[in-house]
Amino acid sequence: MSGIPSGTPSGSPSERFIVGVDIGGTNLVVGAVPVDGGAAQAVRTRPTEPHRGGRFVVGRVARMVEKVIDEVSEAHGVGREAFLGLGIGSPGPLDRDTGTVIETPNLGWQNFPLRDLLSTEVGLPATLDNDANCATYGEWWQGAGRGVSTLAGVTIGTGVGGGLVIDGRIFHGASDVAGEIGHMTINFEGRRCRCGNYGCLEAYVSGPNIAARAVEGIDLNPDSILPDLVGGELDRITAATVYEAAVRGDAYADEVLSETAKILGAGIANLINLVNPEVVVVAGGVTKAGEHLLRPLRAAVRKRAFRSAVDVCRILPAELDATAGVVGAAGVFRSSLADGPARARRPLDDASSVP
Amino acid sequence: MSGIPSGTPSGSPSERFIVGVDIGGTNLVVGAVPVDGGAAQAVRTRPTEPHRGGRFVVGRVARMVEKVIDEVSEAHGVGREAFLGLGIGSPGPLDRDTGTVIETPNLGWQNFPLRDLLSTEVGLPATLDNDANCATYGEWWQGAGRGVSTLAGVTIGTGVGGGLVIDGRIFHGASDVAGEIGHMTINFEGRRCRCGNYGCLEAYVSGPNIAARAVEGIDLNPDSILPDLVGGELDRITAATVYEAAVRGDAYADEVLSETAKILGAGIANLINLVNPEVVVVAGGVTKAGEHLLRPLRAAVRKRAFRSAVDVCRILPAELDATAGVVGAAGVFRSSLADGPARARRPLDDASSVP
Repeated sequence: MSGIPSGTPSGSPSERFIVGVDIGGTNLVVGAVPVDGGAAQAVRTRPTEPHRGGRFVVGRVARMVEKVIDEVSEAHGVGREAFLGLGIGSPGPLDRDTGTVIETPNLGWQNFPLRDLLSTEVGLPATLDNDANCATYGEWWQGAGRGVSTLAGVTIGTGVGGGLVIDGRIFHGASDVAGEIGHMTINFEGRRCRCGNYGCLEAYVSGPNIAARAVEGIDLNPDSILPDLVGGELDRITAATVYEAAVRGDAYADEVLSETAKILGAGIANLINLVNPEVVVVAGGVTKAGEHLLRPLRAAVRKRAFRSAVDVCRILPAELDATAGVVGAAGVFRSSLADGPARARRPLDDASSVP
Repeated sequence: MSGIPSGTPSGSPSERFIVGVDIGGTNLVVGAVPVDGGAAQAVRTRPTEPHRGGRFVVGRVARMVEKVIDEVSEAHGVGREAFLGLGIGSPGPLDRDTGTVIETPNLGWQNFPLRDLLSTEVGLPATLDNDANCATYGEWWQGAGRGVSTLAGVTIGTGVGGGLVIDGRIFHGASDVAGEIGHMTINFEGRRCRCGNYGCLEAYVSGPNIAARAVEGIDLNPDSILPDLVGGELDRITAATVYEAAVRGDAYADEVLSETAKILGAGIANLINLVNPEVVVVAGGVTKAGEHLLRPLRAAVRKRAFRSAVDVCRILPAELDATAGVVGAAGVFRSSLADGPARARRPLDDASSVP
């Protein structure tokens, strides 16, 4: 179904890999991706523990990269020269040209030269791009959006993020902000958002806000199984609890998801009217709600977007799930090869490198 | 200031021109644009009179084109071979490849082969693109957005339209819808829009809706000069009346414009977060309000969009005004020359052509 080859070992020495690194506020994910495409292999996940500092995180990632390289080398009978480089995805904002994370509240980094530190530590050239862009690009390269020209990604998690692929490349805009759908105003008189504004999409449809909206109405819905799922402790209700209740047939949870779909649908309709993509990939925990969310979501989009734009656009759940960021980061490194060496930093020219 | 050469005649026979045609629901505008750029010359405007049918409109435009060609030929001492072709802008949706207007309620056309009819009638190759795209492209090529890579255009008139230029080319998306900002939801519980949905940007900030919102609150603002400007007949208040009152210092009209700016600002902030352009050009009658609108608009955008996107984005009034569509349509034809002959229909290969 997915068309992604499984990571079966092959002894061919001509195989080449790129190591993808996905740096998140909670977890680090690293894996190797065949340069010609395929699933991430030897995927490893470890906690980020950002409070231990940037250098610690770089060291931990470097060790994960070495283990991934060792495992894939052994499985495929290839040497270190089969690993072309590192693609790194990180929360931003960041400066892709210098490979620097300008600022990221979740990790506490400021002007942190992530790409070059990691490149030097591992002894491989590296690229850096935004985590949401990488996840979107992963779905375009090897996931739900393979083969299309224009794709938009929307990730529903603690926040709401997004990215755009136009003509098969990440579209960054003038200052790497392009694709930011989370703080799109969909009700200028609406619900307060943690960003300080009112009525952002995220203020309604992020995981925590889906949970908060479910809790708000629970007293009026005594038949709901939601309280039972959390042993009566309502503050333990998360978006995942709501998805689970809906899948089990809970009418109130289904209603919360229908409302979520209507609001998310207005946001995605705005995206479709502006960017007119062939595919919108919806990623994150919200996909666990499956058709309980997607069916009303597609109906809401159809109600609000231009028909000629809706008719050519498929709204699909993500396929790569937890490895989209790893695959996409590797894909960004790969596309830097096509652009010539200038886009990736090559530490082997650097005396301080550790090959 | 504008950097646009004025249309001073020059006898150089090496000069080449493209005729731009802007077809609107009310007026037809035609002018000649030097192929290397410059202001539209010999600009002519006539009523569209769409009720007389598509063939009538094509005939009227063809006669306007001939007069423009005659006038420019005489002024510049060039022959007909100096006119390379026609760029046509029309309301849509349309099929650019076949040069057909699929449907346009304002003109009553359905599957109307506008490009080829006009190309044959005039005996010049022609291109067809959406009117809002052409106006945006005109501002990019010769107007407020010269020299930038990524630009968004928003036109406030009877409706609210828009277009995108990415990497110096009109971005059409998968089905020519891209850039449609008018029916962006900015309040999913909001004001009814003529499209049938609720809370579209157009439902608040189109000319007729600015006027309607002003009339709604007028009883509570007895000091306003608005009724005086229309001889007490409130149903004669238009957006232009509101702009005029604001410019004359009317506090209530200024309040209506501030509210308009806040809402339009939310829409433009959404556009900036998604597309991250270097310039947003605001066009249409609304620019007559000048800084009464632009100052609160910029503040509203800054409040709602990502700082790193706002910092690189200038929000500017259109420079070309009524000729943006003509200049942009000519620019679209010009870029078809760079793409090779396949993009423009060449009637001179056609036995039925009238050279």
